[in-house]
Amino acid sequence: MDRRGLLFVLSSPSGAGKSTLSRMLLAADAGITLSVSATTRPPRAGEVDGQDYHFVSVERYAEMVSGGDFLEYATVFGNRYGTPRAPVEAALREGRDVLFDIDWQGAQQLHQAAERDVVRVFILPPSIAELEHRLRARGTDDEVVIEARMERARAEISHWDNYDYVLVNDEVAACFAQVQTILAAERLKRARQTGLVAFTRGLMG
Amino acid sequence: MDRRGLLFVLSSPSGAGKSTLSRMLLAADAGITLSVSATTRPPRAGEVDGQDYHFVSVERYAEMVSGGDFLEYATVFGNRYGTPRAPVEAALREGRDVLFDIDWQGAQQLHQAAERDVVRVFILPPSIAELEHRLRARGTDDEVVIEARMERARAEISHWDNYDYVLVNDEVAACFAQVQTILAAERLKRARQTGLVAFTRGLMG
Repeated sequence: MDRRGLLFVLSSPSGAGKSTLSRMLLAADAGITLSVSATTRPPRAGEVDGQDYHFVSVERYAEMVSGGDFLEYATVFGNRYGTPRAPVEAALREGRDVLFDIDWQGAQQLHQAAERDVVRVFILPPSIAELEHRLRARGTDDEVVIEARMERARAEISHWDNYDYVLVNDEVAACFAQVQTILAAERLKRARQTGLVAFTRGLMG
Repeated sequence: MDRRGLLFVLSSPSGAGKSTLSRMLLAADAGITLSVSATTRPPRAGEVDGQDYHFVSVERYAEMVSGGDFLEYATVFGNRYGTPRAPVEAALREGRDVLFDIDWQGAQQLHQAAERDVVRVFILPPSIAELEHRLRARGTDDEVVIEARMERARAEISHWDNYDYVLVNDEVAACFAQVQTILAAERLKRARQTGLVAFTRGLMG
């Protein structure tokens, strides 16, 4: 059955498991690919152009904005980020799904740009103590950074009610199964199954 | 997590598998129970009062209508049918789901009465030849009845686009898995998880 793709948004506060769940989904499901944003910020160690981000100059970014090449774009801490429109629209037409690992503001803008195609899932930690434990377990940040991350996490959590689905990531395998269930159900939505018009016409003779 | 129940509608043309799928769902899932309609028509052989239907007199039915006791009601071939409101509202409050094995008109009326709580699933046969084969395989109906059923099936199919989800019942186990997936995902919808308000308040301290 021919269908239209969907834009699958996973958001969570840092430490609640969004990146792990995204990696698991991309590995398990050949029907979904990660949206690669364009950004003017320089690559960090290990980041690959075209895979983690499309790294572009400020001039190229401005051209893309004025050319209408972005589905949504924003400036965060002085760096610019945008979602290239063409690969997303091609995926939707071809019945492929696109994963967005983005924060609540990105989710909101994407929703404004493509409401009927967007499915928004928010991942919560089981408790604030567990979230802090996970951030500390990384062992990479000092106390000031951890406190700033916790503050940002609380702010992110406050936007839970802008999402279509909310999951509590208590145990990652169970939470991942719920993510897969949501994606499977959304693919069965009547409005995405573009092949139904011809199929039902055939049934009715 | 506290949640609000949902009203799960399965519709299909006769022979496409709605009743089999309903029985499978009720057997497999303790969280959902079948809505029992009230009707003025007399019981058929084997039908149990309070289980298949609440069999009521025309006078009692009229009292229930004027008392606002029905969520929706309709007259079909001179017999009256109604969905009692109280058990449905109790189920929604208590986080239990209710299954409705009804036709497109019932689905439409239920949707008008309780839009945000209703999830509508339509089951299609894989082909019109297979539908006819299934109706004939029952061996209970003569040619005139089968032709009338096929005509009614085509009319029912024409309402496929009033549903939230549409499934093709090619293989019953696969179709049943899709029904379960849809129900599981709908239970995770943010708007149904009434416990999230307190839970996220706790997270944000």
